Amino acid sequence: MPTQHIVNAYDAELKFLANRIASMGGHAERMVDQAVQALVNYDTDLARRVIADDLVLDESQREIDDKAVIIIARRQPMADDLREIIGAIRISSDLERVGDLGKNIAKRVISITDHPQPIQLFRGLEALAQLALTQLKEVLDAFATRSVARISFVRDRDDDIDAMYTSLFRELLTYMMEDPRNIAACTHLLFCAKNIERIGDHATNIAETVYHIVTGEQMAAERPKEDKSHKVVLAAK
Amino acid sequence: MPTQHIVNAYDAELKFLANRIASMGGHAERMVDQAVQALVNYDTDLARRVIADDLVLDESQREIDDKAVIIIARRQPMADDLREIIGAIRISSDLERVGDLGKNIAKRVISITDHPQPIQLFRGLEALAQLALTQLKEVLDAFATRSVARISFVRDRDDDIDAMYTSLFRELLTYMMEDPRNIAACTHLLFCAKNIERIGDHATNIAETVYHIVTGEQMAAERPKEDKSHKVVLAAK
Repeated sequence: MPTQHIVNAYDAELKFLANRIASMGGHAERMVDQAVQALVNYDTDLARRVIADDLVLDESQREIDDKAVIIIARRQPMADDLREIIGAIRISSDLERVGDLGKNIAKRVISITDHPQPIQLFRGLEALAQLALTQLKEVLDAFATRSVARISFVRDRDDDIDAMYTSLFRELLTYMMEDPRNIAACTHLLFCAKNIERIGDHATNIAETVYHIVTGEQMAAERPKEDKSHKVVLAAK
Repeated sequence: MPTQHIVNAYDAELKFLANRIASMGGHAERMVDQAVQALVNYDTDLARRVIADDLVLDESQREIDDKAVIIIARRQPMADDLREIIGAIRISSDLERVGDLGKNIAKRVISITDHPQPIQLFRGLEALAQLALTQLKEVLDAFATRSVARISFVRDRDDDIDAMYTSLFRELLTYMMEDPRNIAACTHLLFCAKNIERIGDHATNIAETVYHIVTGEQMAAERPKEDKSHKVVLAAK
């Protein structure tokens, strides 16, 4: 048996989990990006493809869960590897939720196509999605490279996402007040915005998991996890 | 050493996890119940207590996570116990989210106190919360008794919750259209309703985890996880 072909089966199993997470991450990013494109362009065909695409993430999560439990039972891993395996379970659960949120945006596309809304609302949603997707990409890179150097920025940017969401929330409410015919469509856009804001939260969760995998420590408990939109009270016109 | 006092330390550790989950469950139920009471009665003091209460769940989740990893590393558990321990990690994460959703409802109380809304909207929210809390209580009972006999009902009732949520969503939209002065407050109530619907989803997640702990099998993949409110399109008046 040629020695260069001897692989450590255990390392290969851990590598399998990491690769699966990376591919779930790419899939989730694409779903969210396409859902927002479908929304902006009233593209119901693309929306339907995004909805169908969600099954892939559900199956991947299940596969990672099953595989992780098998690895733990068979290999009885020590602290470092155990953090890695439990971390994979956590991250795949966050990514599955990101896919759900993308799917939910896609579902709303079909409801708003008959009620076109002003372009600046969509620009706001696109900008919010761009921030959340940058966030997601960055934490997935941190996971792939096992690097926590830039992970503290993730929380700062989560504040930016929350602030932008709150401003969009206010804008949508104002627009609803100006013309009640906008209410149903704008409510769907409100939930789309909320979904994107939640994607940012899941990216922050993943950042915390990566930090724990790499350092063995928890990031400080206190973090601003909530948007401020609950404080919005508008004077009626 | 009296033999009747010899405890299996490992069993005690597993028991610790189960007890902590039970106490997190009770805490989360109480938070949601009180948040909805605070909303219905415009009780900002109670709302503030609910918001402060959320810290307990965050700390418990962290404690369960750390303890679970220590148990796995030290005891190298076999399949059954491993499912139990990984299950504890999953359930505590769902319960922590339920607490977050309760806290988010409580935060909105403070924004709507100056804009009283009709009592029937609150009745709808109360009824929805009642269904979600019954659901949560039932799955926590199933976890405590390791019984899956009634767990299939959980999905059926999740459909009821989704249907009631969609109807409330429609009612809130109609009310916003009737009078634009209601828009800001009703939007907060919409998000409260959505939060309660999500609590039902988390109860369903917990049901699936309990099923997996007890049987070693996954519940069938397909489940109606989404409400139908994304389809709501109202004719403007």
